[in-house]
Amino acid sequence: MTIKKDKPLISVVMGSKSDLEIMDKAANILRDMMVPFELDIVSAHRTPRKMFDFAESLEERGIMIVIAGAGGAAHLPGMIASLTMVPVIGVPISATKLTGVDALLSIAQMPAGIPVATVAIDNAENAGLLALQILGTTQKEVADKLRAYRSNLRKKVEIASKTVRDF
Amino acid sequence: MTIKKDKPLISVVMGSKSDLEIMDKAANILRDMMVPFELDIVSAHRTPRKMFDFAESLEERGIMIVIAGAGGAAHLPGMIASLTMVPVIGVPISATKLTGVDALLSIAQMPAGIPVATVAIDNAENAGLLALQILGTTQKEVADKLRAYRSNLRKKVEIASKTVRDF
Amino acid sequence: MTIKKDKPLISVVMGSKSDLEIMDKAANILRDMMVPFELDIVSAHRTPRKMFDFAESLEERGIMIVIAGAGGAAHLPGMIASLTMVPVIGVPISATKLTGVDALLSIAQMPAGIPVATVAIDNAENAGLLALQILGTTQKEVADKLRAYRSNLRKKVEIASKTVRDF
Amino acid sequence: MTIKKDKPLISVVMGSKSDLEIMDKAANILRDMMVPFELDIVSAHRTPRKMFDFAESLEERGIMIVIAGAGGAAHLPGMIASLTMVPVIGVPISATKLTGVDALLSIAQMPAGIPVATVAIDNAENAGLLALQILGTTQKEVADKLRAYRSNLRKKVEIASKTVRDF
Amino acid sequence: MTIKKDKPLISVVMGSKSDLEIMDKAANILRDMMVPFELDIVSAHRTPRKMFDFAESLEERGIMIVIAGAGGAAHLPGMIASLTMVPVIGVPISATKLTGVDALLSIAQMPAGIPVATVAIDNAENAGLLALQILGTTQKEVADKLRAYRSNLRKKVEIASKTVRDF
Amino acid sequence: MTIKKDKPLISVVMGSKSDLEIMDKAANILRDMMVPFELDIVSAHRTPRKMFDFAESLEERGIMIVIAGAGGAAHLPGMIASLTMVPVIGVPISATKLTGVDALLSIAQMPAGIPVATVAIDNAENAGLLALQILGTTQKEVADKLRAYRSNLRKKVEIASKTVRDF
Amino acid sequence: MTIKKDKPLISVVMGSKSDLEIMDKAANILRDMMVPFELDIVSAHRTPRKMFDFAESLEERGIMIVIAGAGGAAHLPGMIASLTMVPVIGVPISATKLTGVDALLSIAQMPAGIPVATVAIDNAENAGLLALQILGTTQKEVADKLRAYRSNLRKKVEIASKTVRDF
Amino acid sequence: MTIKKDKPLISVVMGSKSDLEIMDKAANILRDMMVPFELDIVSAHRTPRKMFDFAESLEERGIMIVIAGAGGAAHLPGMIASLTMVPVIGVPISATKLTGVDALLSIAQMPAGIPVATVAIDNAENAGLLALQILGTTQKEVADKLRAYRSNLRKKVEIASKTVRDF
Repeated sequence: MTIKKDKPLISVVMGSKSDLEIMDKAANILRDMMVPFELDIVSAHRTPRKMFDFAESLEERGIMIVIAGAGGAAHLPGMIASLTMVPVIGVPISATKLTGVDALLSIAQMPAGIPVATVAIDNAENAGLLALQILGTTQKEVADKLRAYRSNLRKKVEIASKTVRDF
Repeated sequence: MTIKKDKPLISVVMGSKSDLEIMDKAANILRDMMVPFELDIVSAHRTPRKMFDFAESLEERGIMIVIAGAGGAAHLPGMIASLTMVPVIGVPISATKLTGVDALLSIAQMPAGIPVATVAIDNAENAGLLALQILGTTQKEVADKLRAYRSNLRKKVEIASKTVRDF
Repeated sequence: MTIKKDKPLISVVMGSKSDLEIMDKAANILRDMMVPFELDIVSAHRTPRKMFDFAESLEERGIMIVIAGAGGAAHLPGMIASLTMVPVIGVPISATKLTGVDALLSIAQMPAGIPVATVAIDNAENAGLLALQILGTTQKEVADKLRAYRSNLRKKVEIASKTVRDF
Repeated sequence: MTIKKDKPLISVVMGSKSDLEIMDKAANILRDMMVPFELDIVSAHRTPRKMFDFAESLEERGIMIVIAGAGGAAHLPGMIASLTMVPVIGVPISATKLTGVDALLSIAQMPAGIPVATVAIDNAENAGLLALQILGTTQKEVADKLRAYRSNLRKKVEIASKTVRDF
Repeated sequence: MTIKKDKPLISVVMGSKSDLEIMDKAANILRDMMVPFELDIVSAHRTPRKMFDFAESLEERGIMIVIAGAGGAAHLPGMIASLTMVPVIGVPISATKLTGVDALLSIAQMPAGIPVATVAIDNAENAGLLALQILGTTQKEVADKLRAYRSNLRKKVEIASKTVRDF
Repeated sequence: MTIKKDKPLISVVMGSKSDLEIMDKAANILRDMMVPFELDIVSAHRTPRKMFDFAESLEERGIMIVIAGAGGAAHLPGMIASLTMVPVIGVPISATKLTGVDALLSIAQMPAGIPVATVAIDNAENAGLLALQILGTTQKEVADKLRAYRSNLRKKVEIASKTVRDF
Repeated sequence: MTIKKDKPLISVVMGSKSDLEIMDKAANILRDMMVPFELDIVSAHRTPRKMFDFAESLEERGIMIVIAGAGGAAHLPGMIASLTMVPVIGVPISATKLTGVDALLSIAQMPAGIPVATVAIDNAENAGLLALQILGTTQKEVADKLRAYRSNLRKKVEIASKTVRDF
Repeated sequence: MTIKKDKPLISVVMGSKSDLEIMDKAANILRDMMVPFELDIVSAHRTPRKMFDFAESLEERGIMIVIAGAGGAAHLPGMIASLTMVPVIGVPISATKLTGVDALLSIAQMPAGIPVATVAIDNAENAGLLALQILGTTQKEVADKLRAYRSNLRKKVEIASKTVRDF
């Protein structure tokens, strides 16, 4: 399968507009790798019916992976996961005084039967990369781009390493 | 308003059959006080559509209060709350190795706009009592029964107190 | 029953004047919905006798619901609950270095017999809404206002959604 | 001042009969040291009025120190402390699934103005010893008994040490 | 791509033989769905070189997803992830006195650049299901099996629901 | 016994000069109540021998109560307690990234035999008040001052209450 | 330097006889590697003076490393460290209801100036191995034995791996 | 053995350049004591192969102790420890919203067989001192410098003590 520019393969959603600063890190990775995606606000608690329609439309719209970020009692990733076969990546957001522990447990501790692929607190960048790795299992050009990305990460460490060694 | 025996006023639901031992404590309080209720399993994750229909039917079915128990990433109380105006009481259940901390945070840490009335971990008895207190704000006979219940609690402590003082 | 303007139906209390910024969010919801309420400082620890008199006067004064906020070893909601049949909603306030975990546990972990309806840390807005939902179980005009409030929440998300989709 | 056998100097109270196994360790220390004490159940939540009367009577009854044990949302020590000038020692009891963390925070995190002397979770023995140390600040015979107790503790370690060295 | 029986598509590894009871739940899901997989012990700490060779061989051996379970300072999932482009699903195992909190944080809190798809503590079944959902994004027969599995989950809840309603 | 101005009855010590801002709140209470005290830095870890001499000299120097504050692995209160019969009040200080949880557990969780009277994190004011309450069990003038202090606390709440009611 | 059989190089101490089951795992490693060691009970709280003498005698007795285990408010490792230049390895023991979290923080969170080398909760085996690795930095025969031990660990994993692969 | 200036005895590494501010405190202690060391960035996750080569080269390069700092899912210290016999000191860094709890558990909770000597969160100074104490077990001049350092610590406390006593 080749990537078609105008049809999103990945859906990046968040529970609240205040999550955008964090979730935009996922979007940026997808932009950089030129994988088509959509970005939206879908609140499990304030727009539950929209969330239902959203989750149930994913497969027929050709979305292959969902990235869902939420803070506090973060139900969005788990609820989407309960309504679709599309893999859901959950991003716990440090939106409350509990600095993301509540969101981490609300997203990771799903019951047997309905998994959510949880990443680190506020780490939407990793959600984007994980989505690309999943695409990369069957799309060679995505895998190649990720290899270049990793190679770049390594080079940055090497440059920093040089600075520190001479510190 | 008087209580009609055959029409439930309170709905007691839980995410899994394994929650029944805990949630039956809520049912027992309602049985003891002779307030009509229904008891069911509604899983946010395994039966999300049933949960939607359940939540959306509550008002027209005359349910005045929902008691919802769940463990782990406990989304059931919050999701029902997002779909109805009926007050939802959430019971965090110690179903995982985190002994209910995950469920407590998943239920209590709801975002602004959609409250859940959270009680103590595994304390479904208090969920039942809270539901009755809410009914009691407008139903004198329920309030009277609660006063008798409290008086009984006090007497039990007094009897225990006598035993301990002579210990 | 209709709402009388000059007689409070809901009592909003807090343990310390420093809690006012948080607890005013509950008051604002009640103001917006034009439900008569009272606002006061009642400290379980510094004014225990006032707290006793306050709690014991609630029913005869016609108060239907108490909203009580406190931080640290937050005893106010639970102690009021132990002294009245009126439902008590507890708001854990992040007043100490433990950012509200202490207050959450002190309020939520009540023993069997005396429930407190606990909401999220610092989330007094939800306490106000929960109180209104309880009133709404028997007062149609309150339920209607809450439906309008929820509809408004949904619309705000939809507007934000539009912005983000075009981001 | 000398110790009068028939008039208790220390009051040992607990929130529930189920706390007796733990709280009896405090009583045992007082029995061993022959300091007169009383033992009772006083529940902050189920017998709040008794708790008030109890706390307000302490000084005139000649009680010099209160030891109060409670689990979960453990309000008993702090509420007694708010109603008397008599020093209150609080024992957090591991009565819930949170194994005493809830009780520890509910007892220790008291606001400025009303201290509770908190000991370790389930460590009622230390509450008894602390009460005796407080008495010992003005009663030489109590201080002497404590010195003998400590000396005994040391000897037990020395005997155990011998066994282990030869292990 | 069709599934070839004799060539594993998924690799299920664990840090210690004592993890087998948990990790076998992942294997069972894969067996039930007839997706070829391999099962092995690869310890990040006791066999680091084997882990390196294992991780570096994954792509050329045609492994599409890794499921890695570990307890305590659980480095296995993250270290494999750092050495391959194949998506890694991490299962935190409650192997220590901290009941899996240590493993959850060691697996989930990966730095930007190297994601691990973390599931709930001890929930290897969900790791298996997540792997299948990832396969299902491109393999219709896997997606169909998952739909049947979900349908079965729902039916089980419905049967349990019937029992509880008649309770 | 009457209080002699020039001989300290209470010793206020802390592990580090950076603790002074917190511990000065204890000193201020003692100053306000005109109870003679001493203030010093005694580090369990950096000046262990001084700590030993300090602890062993307390009784003969007529010190009746020790208030010891420390952060992190806060050993100072417990170690002093192990070396004297004088009651030790421990103040956990939020000196590390764990915001006082480490100090709270290091101070409160003492083994059976050697109690420390633990107060809330950073709440040195309560340590001062507790020390005065202990003195007050035998010194009428201290008890009277504390009663005035409490009465003042109550009045402050009443004034704040008036402001809030008119808010 | 060569190892002399009759003069201990490593001192293994614990706060209480009940810690022996855990701490014996350190002793066993030393026995297996034939490195002379001593085993004793030294309680920071019940035998503080013995602890002082013990810590101050270490260097002149030729002890090169101390392994100290303790539970709860675990002060033993840190206090020994404050009294000697000999490196101290601390073993947090899960002796209380907090399952070792208290001991871990009491041992690990030492202030700048006085380090303790902390190992995992209840993991005295690792304390023994760490002590041997330290000796191994200058004693070739100890390093060789450790290499054999590691090789053996690896072989055990390989044998287990074979069983699991054929599972 | 004497210290040769131009050949490092201690290797100080960190997972990211952002850890340098913390880890430089370890380097400063080594600089002050004139013990030759190297400083580098070695990322377990972004440069795993470099980490392998680094860890495997340590012994032949004559490195006697490694100090490794990392935040979040901090795998660097444990992975180096799994690849060498050289003792590894781990510094948990508060790099995430969990303020170092994740790093502390990821570093301290190593499985039996592969120890890491863990110090306090962000306390790289103690890692440097612990490394020097280990060197000091066989190098008299290092031990002497440490004694001077400790003596200096004590003096600083004494000067601060004087200021506070006159406060």
